[in-house]
Amino acid sequence: MKILRINMKDLSVKEDNTIKYSSLGGRALTSKIVHDEVPATCHPLGPFNKLIFANGVLTGSGASSADRYSIGAKSPLTGGIKESNAGGVSGLKLGRLGIRALVFEDVRDDFKIIHVSKNGINFDDAAPILGKDLSEAADILREKYGSHIAVWLIGVSGEQKMNLAAIAGQDKEGLPTRFNGRGGLGAVAGSKGVKAIVLDDEGVEKNRPIDKDAFREAMKTYHKWLMETPGTAKVFPELGTAGLVRTTNTLGALPTRNFSTGSFEHFENISGEKLRETILERGGEGTPTHACMPGCIIRCSNVYVNKAGKLVTSPVEYENIGLLGSNLGIGDLDDIAELNRLCNEYGVDTIETGGALGVLMSQNVLSYGDVDGTIKAVKEIKEGTPFGRIIGSGANIVGKLYGAYRVPTVKGQTMAAYDPRAIKGLGVTYATSPMGADHTAGQVIRAQVDHHSSEGQVKASKDAQESVTIFDSLGMCYFGGGAIQGRFDLIADLITAYIGQKVTAEFLKETALDTLKLEHDFNRKAGFTKADDRLPEYIYMEENPASKTVFDVPQEEMETIGVESDTYRLNN
Amino acid sequence: MKILRINMKDLSVKEDNTIKYSSLGGRALTSKIVHDEVPATCHPLGPFNKLIFANGVLTGSGASSADRYSIGAKSPLTGGIKESNAGGVSGLKLGRLGIRALVFEDVRDDFKIIHVSKNGINFDDAAPILGKDLSEAADILREKYGSHIAVWLIGVSGEQKMNLAAIAGQDKEGLPTRFNGRGGLGAVAGSKGVKAIVLDDEGVEKNRPIDKDAFREAMKTYHKWLMETPGTAKVFPELGTAGLVRTTNTLGALPTRNFSTGSFEHFENISGEKLRETILERGGEGTPTHACMPGCIIRCSNVYVNKAGKLVTSPVEYENIGLLGSNLGIGDLDDIAELNRLCNEYGVDTIETGGALGVLMSQNVLSYGDVDGTIKAVKEIKEGTPFGRIIGSGANIVGKLYGAYRVPTVKGQTMAAYDPRAIKGLGVTYATSPMGADHTAGQVIRAQVDHHSSEGQVKASKDAQESVTIFDSLGMCYFGGGAIQGRFDLIADLITAYIGQKVTAEFLKETALDTLKLEHDFNRKAGFTKADDRLPEYIYMEENPASKTVFDVPQEEMETIGVESDTYRLNN
Repeated sequence: MKILRINMKDLSVKEDNTIKYSSLGGRALTSKIVHDEVPATCHPLGPFNKLIFANGVLTGSGASSADRYSIGAKSPLTGGIKESNAGGVSGLKLGRLGIRALVFEDVRDDFKIIHVSKNGINFDDAAPILGKDLSEAADILREKYGSHIAVWLIGVSGEQKMNLAAIAGQDKEGLPTRFNGRGGLGAVAGSKGVKAIVLDDEGVEKNRPIDKDAFREAMKTYHKWLMETPGTAKVFPELGTAGLVRTTNTLGALPTRNFSTGSFEHFENISGEKLRETILERGGEGTPTHACMPGCIIRCSNVYVNKAGKLVTSPVEYENIGLLGSNLGIGDLDDIAELNRLCNEYGVDTIETGGALGVLMSQNVLSYGDVDGTIKAVKEIKEGTPFGRIIGSGANIVGKLYGAYRVPTVKGQTMAAYDPRAIKGLGVTYATSPMGADHTAGQVIRAQVDHHSSEGQVKASKDAQESVTIFDSLGMCYFGGGAIQGRFDLIADLITAYIGQKVTAEFLKETALDTLKLEHDFNRKAGFTKADDRLPEYIYMEENPASKTVFDVPQEEMETIGVESDTYRLNN
Repeated sequence: MKILRINMKDLSVKEDNTIKYSSLGGRALTSKIVHDEVPATCHPLGPFNKLIFANGVLTGSGASSADRYSIGAKSPLTGGIKESNAGGVSGLKLGRLGIRALVFEDVRDDFKIIHVSKNGINFDDAAPILGKDLSEAADILREKYGSHIAVWLIGVSGEQKMNLAAIAGQDKEGLPTRFNGRGGLGAVAGSKGVKAIVLDDEGVEKNRPIDKDAFREAMKTYHKWLMETPGTAKVFPELGTAGLVRTTNTLGALPTRNFSTGSFEHFENISGEKLRETILERGGEGTPTHACMPGCIIRCSNVYVNKAGKLVTSPVEYENIGLLGSNLGIGDLDDIAELNRLCNEYGVDTIETGGALGVLMSQNVLSYGDVDGTIKAVKEIKEGTPFGRIIGSGANIVGKLYGAYRVPTVKGQTMAAYDPRAIKGLGVTYATSPMGADHTAGQVIRAQVDHHSSEGQVKASKDAQESVTIFDSLGMCYFGGGAIQGRFDLIADLITAYIGQKVTAEFLKETALDTLKLEHDFNRKAGFTKADDRLPEYIYMEENPASKTVFDVPQEEMETIGVESDTYRLNN
């Protein structure tokens, strides 16, 4: 597995054999390169930032839910380090090409398609796909390079270097709908002229584990654990992440009307149960359970269809429902699906888009529940109008433009679909993760704590942040990771057999801790302090009417895992 | 002299006798209150921020150039502490009412006129002046309250809580054109519902020095120094600050086309000489030399008129010429005056507006030199269109919205009209001042250094930052302050005679140092680190073609006076 460095200014490519990243993958690898090579105070859209696509250690191994890849850079949205990972098959194809990571350096003004094959790397003019919706762009690329390829793509938002621009990978059916959504990584790609990466694995062999027998055994044990966990085996395949709607609504954590409350009068209409029922009723191309990666037994994804049974978008997930639905006062799945479709076509982060729209509604620039007005507004992202640019800058900047007080962001990034007053452990994650308000950086919704209490939340978040850093480095979905319930030895066995080097659970944990240390260290150098490890002021001051709670985890306790804590200090 | 606390939520007023600020005025007072009472991490437009209007110690004394007042708060533009001071007569009238400072607390949604007279404070509905240009609003207030009043006002930008909203005081002729321009203090006023403050000194006595004879003597010496300094005695009264255009153009420091170079082919058309000639030629209401405060012998202000000799705007100053002229590729004084007039009428900071427009031009959203397009754009600030909101957010956010790399801001604030590659001491001030990129926080253009060299710049900036903090606390214009060339004993004698308490030069210097310590301490708590004490990346990397220099003052040397240095640490 090699690391390729691609200088986008002079379009040169070189293989990097100088650095030993042998047992690092995914987030551990992206964060190490960002930490070691990107000056922390650099302009995120300038020549000194780097954009790294890195596979997890298990990506392509055939283990369920383990084909994820990470993209890392300094984030234009948060100003800190960013890693965002996704599933689908693009990472898989990169691995099949024998590449652990692509490192994009420097900047350029025009846009290129980077074609990666066993014959090396070619740079083609991206003009034919500029300004197109992502699904159309993907079709054009398949037409040009063959239907066997996988792609990474940025949309019109990335071309415009918007803060909410994502990078799209594709699922196994070829839809470019697996998103590295958060942190504006699509804008970084845009600044480097990386419009599309075509992963062309024609004529290359499937990856094989070094120790096939041991690997088969380890897989069996691992999959057994997945199947025996109720969440993975039953809830996810049946309802997907949307199964959370009822849970969070009951807790008072479902973001509603710009996070002004945590339960929504129309929650039943946007629940996972309703989603499943609707898709099953309509039939056709729809399916309530869909695997984004081949062989995944969790299958939390879905394909949403219109009344004629034709594809609208895939997938409709909990975060989309929360941010584009209840948070905007929109209580209809068809409307949410249409907004989701537009976000996917333009290549924008649905969470950040929902956050921005919510703040605009709170300031009466748009109206809660006004579906037509909302769709029109989102379309302005593509048109690049001033208002489209405003939405494209994300919730935090929208708040500044309109003088808003209630802006649901941390480190400049919109909170995911969990009100931190009602699920306080997520508040701790939002505040203290080097990634900003990102639920995937430390999801605690299944932690054994009273979510309304301030007790035990810091520990729950800390554990979750450390565990997920392991999964993010291995290419494992955290649903799969969560199912193994701390049995990292099972994962270690899988890796040992796959790469043929002894790996222990302790090594995995140490690597995760090292990664978090590098990330916090980068952020400290970039100027983050404990003043940034805070939630928005109103979250401490104003009761969430649904949960009847404010956020009250003591700041000093959060600081024990925050950017200034000793927990995440490098030894040197 | 009393301090009044005005709670804008319940419209209660109380006199504060609990805190002893006897010898503190202006910036020393605003910064002390902000430091001691405003939580550093609070939302700048929320209930915990405070907005303080504080007179200098000498304001109203009759000493030339010493009637200034400070306004302080946590800045919505920089996120740090902010003090901005201005001349005119509004501070003077506040002093005549026996008030050292007004402290506005909490927030409200509607707007009030705060009427201050010897009978106390009344709150009137501001509806009649909402949405009006500032000159019209001032006329309405004079009609209602009498022509003897002075006012403080925010414009449509402050009502909309825009980042570039300023607070206007008035000059001795009644024009609301003396601006506390920087840092978005108008937005803070807007968040508190403070639309206007009417200072009604009917029936109150003129202030008298305690020791009249000693004061007369001290005044004589002080004014003699002013008159004997060439800059104060000759250049300023003749050319105003616009006399700097030729100087900075020669140095290559005149910001031109979004700070892309430092000399402008049409500089002669916008020089101080041309300005004087134009005003004298046109006659009528114009004057090339004008005192904003009664009795000022520097008279750096002017009144600019159209071809018919009718008032256009007052004053046209160097910063306006640089930021609204050469920085936008505009080389005609009539055009600059019209842009300046609009900025004044809308109550916006001309520097931040010019910075925002320059970045938009660099991204081809507007065009350099397109006067009509620029005027149309500025008018959108008043209309509150999305594009108007974008301009109103300032250059830094404009840069983020449009993915710009070359954004001439520090701590989120546009640099004043001096390219820091060509006047490197100002680069040090921009980088290290707690106020962000503000030339008034440490002007070094007259320092005895080679402005193109990196040598001696840190010391020059440090000296200037400390001196100006003294002037800012006394209500002294730094032109007057500069003229006394370090003879702080002269000022100490003036104060001693005026307030009847022995004040020494050492006390003045210590107070200034204490003030800077409080300001840096606030910023540290607000999350500032040495990562914020930097200029934009391109200023280090790309040569200014006019000066043939990059900014190269060593970062470590700047850190000796930056936010993390020991120089500005509190003892406790």
